[in-house]
Amino acid sequence: MTIRIGVIGTGVMGAGHASMLASQIAGCEVVAVADADEARAKVVAGKVGAARVFSDGKALIGDTGVDAVVVASPDPTHHPLVMECLRQVKPVLCEKPLGTNSTECREIVETEMRSGRRLVQVGFMRRFDPGYEAVKAALTEERHGLPLFLHCIHRNAVAASYTTSEAIILNTAVHEIDAARFLLGEEFVSATVRGTRATRSAPSRTPQFLLLETASGVLVDIEAFVDAQYGYDVRAELVCEKGAMSLAQTHAVRTWSSGTVGNSLYADWMGRFDDAYRRELQAWVQSIRSWKAVGASAWDGYVSTRTAELCLEAYRSRQTVTIDIEERPAFYA
Amino acid sequence: MTIRIGVIGTGVMGAGHASMLASQIAGCEVVAVADADEARAKVVAGKVGAARVFSDGKALIGDTGVDAVVVASPDPTHHPLVMECLRQVKPVLCEKPLGTNSTECREIVETEMRSGRRLVQVGFMRRFDPGYEAVKAALTEERHGLPLFLHCIHRNAVAASYTTSEAIILNTAVHEIDAARFLLGEEFVSATVRGTRATRSAPSRTPQFLLLETASGVLVDIEAFVDAQYGYDVRAELVCEKGAMSLAQTHAVRTWSSGTVGNSLYADWMGRFDDAYRRELQAWVQSIRSWKAVGASAWDGYVSTRTAELCLEAYRSRQTVTIDIEERPAFYA
Amino acid sequence: MTIRIGVIGTGVMGAGHASMLASQIAGCEVVAVADADEARAKVVAGKVGAARVFSDGKALIGDTGVDAVVVASPDPTHHPLVMECLRQVKPVLCEKPLGTNSTECREIVETEMRSGRRLVQVGFMRRFDPGYEAVKAALTEERHGLPLFLHCIHRNAVAASYTTSEAIILNTAVHEIDAARFLLGEEFVSATVRGTRATRSAPSRTPQFLLLETASGVLVDIEAFVDAQYGYDVRAELVCEKGAMSLAQTHAVRTWSSGTVGNSLYADWMGRFDDAYRRELQAWVQSIRSWKAVGASAWDGYVSTRTAELCLEAYRSRQTVTIDIEERPAFYA
Amino acid sequence: MTIRIGVIGTGVMGAGHASMLASQIAGCEVVAVADADEARAKVVAGKVGAARVFSDGKALIGDTGVDAVVVASPDPTHHPLVMECLRQVKPVLCEKPLGTNSTECREIVETEMRSGRRLVQVGFMRRFDPGYEAVKAALTEERHGLPLFLHCIHRNAVAASYTTSEAIILNTAVHEIDAARFLLGEEFVSATVRGTRATRSAPSRTPQFLLLETASGVLVDIEAFVDAQYGYDVRAELVCEKGAMSLAQTHAVRTWSSGTVGNSLYADWMGRFDDAYRRELQAWVQSIRSWKAVGASAWDGYVSTRTAELCLEAYRSRQTVTIDIEERPAFYA
Repeated sequence: MTIRIGVIGTGVMGAGHASMLASQIAGCEVVAVADADEARAKVVAGKVGAARVFSDGKALIGDTGVDAVVVASPDPTHHPLVMECLRQVKPVLCEKPLGTNSTECREIVETEMRSGRRLVQVGFMRRFDPGYEAVKAALTEERHGLPLFLHCIHRNAVAASYTTSEAIILNTAVHEIDAARFLLGEEFVSATVRGTRATRSAPSRTPQFLLLETASGVLVDIEAFVDAQYGYDVRAELVCEKGAMSLAQTHAVRTWSSGTVGNSLYADWMGRFDDAYRRELQAWVQSIRSWKAVGASAWDGYVSTRTAELCLEAYRSRQTVTIDIEERPAFYA
Repeated sequence: MTIRIGVIGTGVMGAGHASMLASQIAGCEVVAVADADEARAKVVAGKVGAARVFSDGKALIGDTGVDAVVVASPDPTHHPLVMECLRQVKPVLCEKPLGTNSTECREIVETEMRSGRRLVQVGFMRRFDPGYEAVKAALTEERHGLPLFLHCIHRNAVAASYTTSEAIILNTAVHEIDAARFLLGEEFVSATVRGTRATRSAPSRTPQFLLLETASGVLVDIEAFVDAQYGYDVRAELVCEKGAMSLAQTHAVRTWSSGTVGNSLYADWMGRFDDAYRRELQAWVQSIRSWKAVGASAWDGYVSTRTAELCLEAYRSRQTVTIDIEERPAFYA
Repeated sequence: MTIRIGVIGTGVMGAGHASMLASQIAGCEVVAVADADEARAKVVAGKVGAARVFSDGKALIGDTGVDAVVVASPDPTHHPLVMECLRQVKPVLCEKPLGTNSTECREIVETEMRSGRRLVQVGFMRRFDPGYEAVKAALTEERHGLPLFLHCIHRNAVAASYTTSEAIILNTAVHEIDAARFLLGEEFVSATVRGTRATRSAPSRTPQFLLLETASGVLVDIEAFVDAQYGYDVRAELVCEKGAMSLAQTHAVRTWSSGTVGNSLYADWMGRFDDAYRRELQAWVQSIRSWKAVGASAWDGYVSTRTAELCLEAYRSRQTVTIDIEERPAFYA
Repeated sequence: MTIRIGVIGTGVMGAGHASMLASQIAGCEVVAVADADEARAKVVAGKVGAARVFSDGKALIGDTGVDAVVVASPDPTHHPLVMECLRQVKPVLCEKPLGTNSTECREIVETEMRSGRRLVQVGFMRRFDPGYEAVKAALTEERHGLPLFLHCIHRNAVAASYTTSEAIILNTAVHEIDAARFLLGEEFVSATVRGTRATRSAPSRTPQFLLLETASGVLVDIEAFVDAQYGYDVRAELVCEKGAMSLAQTHAVRTWSSGTVGNSLYADWMGRFDDAYRRELQAWVQSIRSWKAVGASAWDGYVSTRTAELCLEAYRSRQTVTIDIEERPAFYA
């Protein structure tokens, strides 16, 4: 059974997903592409051999030739498009964020639960990164004892000029929030957030530092810095009772040149997490064939957004804020 | 167009290829599996959803439902099976070696040339490894000047008890010979070979060291050591006029534990070159769809085997042996 | 002019300093050794060729044959012995801490200022570590722009059973506090401190995390974990506007063994900072000869202790505490 | 007892040794400096506080105020100056090479043996490098089994324009020859040598590759490349029966900048082996005080030169040359 996929959104992420699904993922084909900019959709459709092109995402979802949907259109469209997928009972892989706020995310959760079937996967691709998977496996085995600290670094080389300090928490740090939840398997109970001085290259916003406590007493700290200039750099170190593990970009080639020895860094997440994206898409396609949900659920999408909102409150108030997430419904166990 | 693939041989390599083709490669399906041990073939066929099972590889090749063939059966069967694929005009990916000696390889080359079409790819998977590709790309761009030295290391953790010093040259070092030819884009002109003392764990054979000169004056040295015990370890360093590049296993996770900081090594090539195998298979499937040959050709299979045979002569004689390979036919340009 | 040195205290640190001064430091000799345990003092004196042995540190300081003094006796003796050195106008290198609390340190500062001459160096050896020096040099040159974050890790393999959470802040984190002040060249203005869960191997204390803000808007975070079991591990990463620098233990040898590739870690600070200690002692001896104070001053000793005391307050209250250090006297400029 | 040292030669090496002896080495003082260029000698003497200046090295050796001598003058002067030290019965640390050929070295050996006392140390500083020491220690303990391969790399950033292919073997590779003898504790029995193409930046000479066999069956290969441009780079990897160890420059600081992460390389040996030089000098001074010779002996100086001469013969003839060193005299055991 070949899964017939429709891709909504043909920006960098959508075009990348469409191309990867068509050329590197077993068990599927891309049959439809949608974008408000229909010309752009046509170009992508041509490249991946998709016969149908739509300017309206909902029309694509309604197409009977489409078995499953990737939502990679602008953030405000995520909620309505995912809701439509639920209505049409079609599996959907929605790029993060699931909604623009926790209320939207929560509505998706409620609707999915009422539908009685897990249809939504949120595109937190790190859950499929070999590094994160290996750290989680070691933690699950308690190979180094119980966790104590998780140090996270998230640096982008450049950010859009309109990015704000708030957006750094809601859109950047949220990746670390989900990754930490994934690794540790528990929720946060408090957040303290501080900014540094602003940089001269981006004086309107400030690099952020989040300090979070989990229910069991693990401290998670997150540096979120989107103007690091030198490259894209995502790292993490998990410190346990008798050992530690770190993960970072892997480097196939080491170079000696001009007085230095070192490695090239990726410019952005597309290179750094290329393998994670591929594995995420492959696992998603396989999950549709096997009816067994994988990856970040709608619930994870909701909790990450809700946690980030409370971190924003902590940043604004300079107070330690309590994070009080509802218990996870059995539906998402 | 989905390529319908038949896999001959269901040992470690064949079963691995079948599984990867079925679960991770776009544009193909595994429709047939053959093995002299038909029960084993059935198990693999069941796992990958292949409907047809054969005990005879030639029968699989002749099946009209099979578009292309993977040959991963024992070495002595490679030559007759590839010859059969040529007769049936079916694209074939043949695990190395292409034949048990250079005469067999040469016959395949002659036959393929007469057929007028490139049908044979030899499974030198390193040509698809991101590290080797990156080094080759930098070399092609002359990023660090012209090449001078290529230092190669090939260590296996363990080898079969019947492995001989000769086999280390013919079966192990041959991988480096092809990799060096791939990277440098030229042939060798001389070989000098020495063995070390034997190890106490494998007293019947001796680790090998090959020193080869290329036509343009690059020195390639190869350590081939199949009883290294500590792990599988393949590395290379290319030294150019003003810079050097090295490649080795990548490590997603770094671990601090019990007085050391370090990384786990793979036990064998399946882990180390997992990504190379996947990319090799994907490129092969794509090459069938696009009628554009990629990877190591039958010619490459012939030259590597011929070169290794002359290295063996150098080892036995302790003399520097001239390597005088015929000019590459335009057919393989 | 050979500086004649007296060493007070012959525990691990004192014996180490005496031995290093005698065998690796130019321009000095160890002429006297003191320890309440006179037998132990005699053994050390014998090894380093010191003629005079004292059971009373003050008697050693008063000896006319002693030009300068190293204080490495138990912490509570530091204040009275340094005060005696000031009275006798003898240069003194005092192991950290300068006093058991900031009041004691402050008294030393006042006394030294009244004496009109810099006589006190505090043994914050990291200021002489090549790694810290290189980071500071790069920062001074603004090679990567202005600093934003300083991430510090301080892990000990084991700690004394009586060590408390409070002591982790006052005695362990204080090293990072001084190192951060040294690197950044400014003072802290606030502290927030949290502990993790306790470890099962040391249930009576809890690993600490300190988040400090500097006057100019740099965020410094410090993990202080004294029961890490796997080894001694001190690291730091300084993140600037367009680049980052990290430092950690250096490794002369890389080892491939038993399925891993990696490096040995030091068991404690004596190995990790061996070179820093040597350079500290050499610089101190040279500073006596040249009458030009180097390293951490009494003022630095005072500020680090005062800052640590306020961090302790922050830990106990779970509140962000303001750090309001007096302006540095011109005397210490 | 303070050793009063005279330094002959005030070029880069001599001036460096004089400065290091005066400022970082315990138990000695530099009392005399000699150089054919007396003005330059005076400058160095002034910096290190040496009262006596000579234009003639032999006069310095004859000075009764000089206890021991460092010979760092041009290579052709080494033999006569060391012979004079033997005549005057003064310990001497002679920079490599001990003589300009093996006959000269041999004469020193014979003379020293007749004198009945070990007075000569040759400046093969790597024997004091922590990395080489650690590898040797692990080998002595047979931590990874018996040795099989030793891969050596010696790259200089730049070389004098008059350097020849021959000089690369005699002056550059000789360092590796001594290092290998030091690590393995045995002699070579054969040498095969090849050059690569010449580089465009140094067309008059060619990078060298030496392949040597030891008596016990270890293969040692040496890349000697003096025009590597990117930096000074000396590395080694020792491969044993069940593990391997490598050594290279250590890096105190890791830098993320401009799309790369990496480390700075030293420009030359003075930086790379700074610590080795210091330890060599300290050990030499201590050896004089304790009458116990350390480091490379005159015998080691002789054997390394003789071995390099035979390597040169192998290079010229393109034949494998037998190395037949006399048995080591008991005097040097």
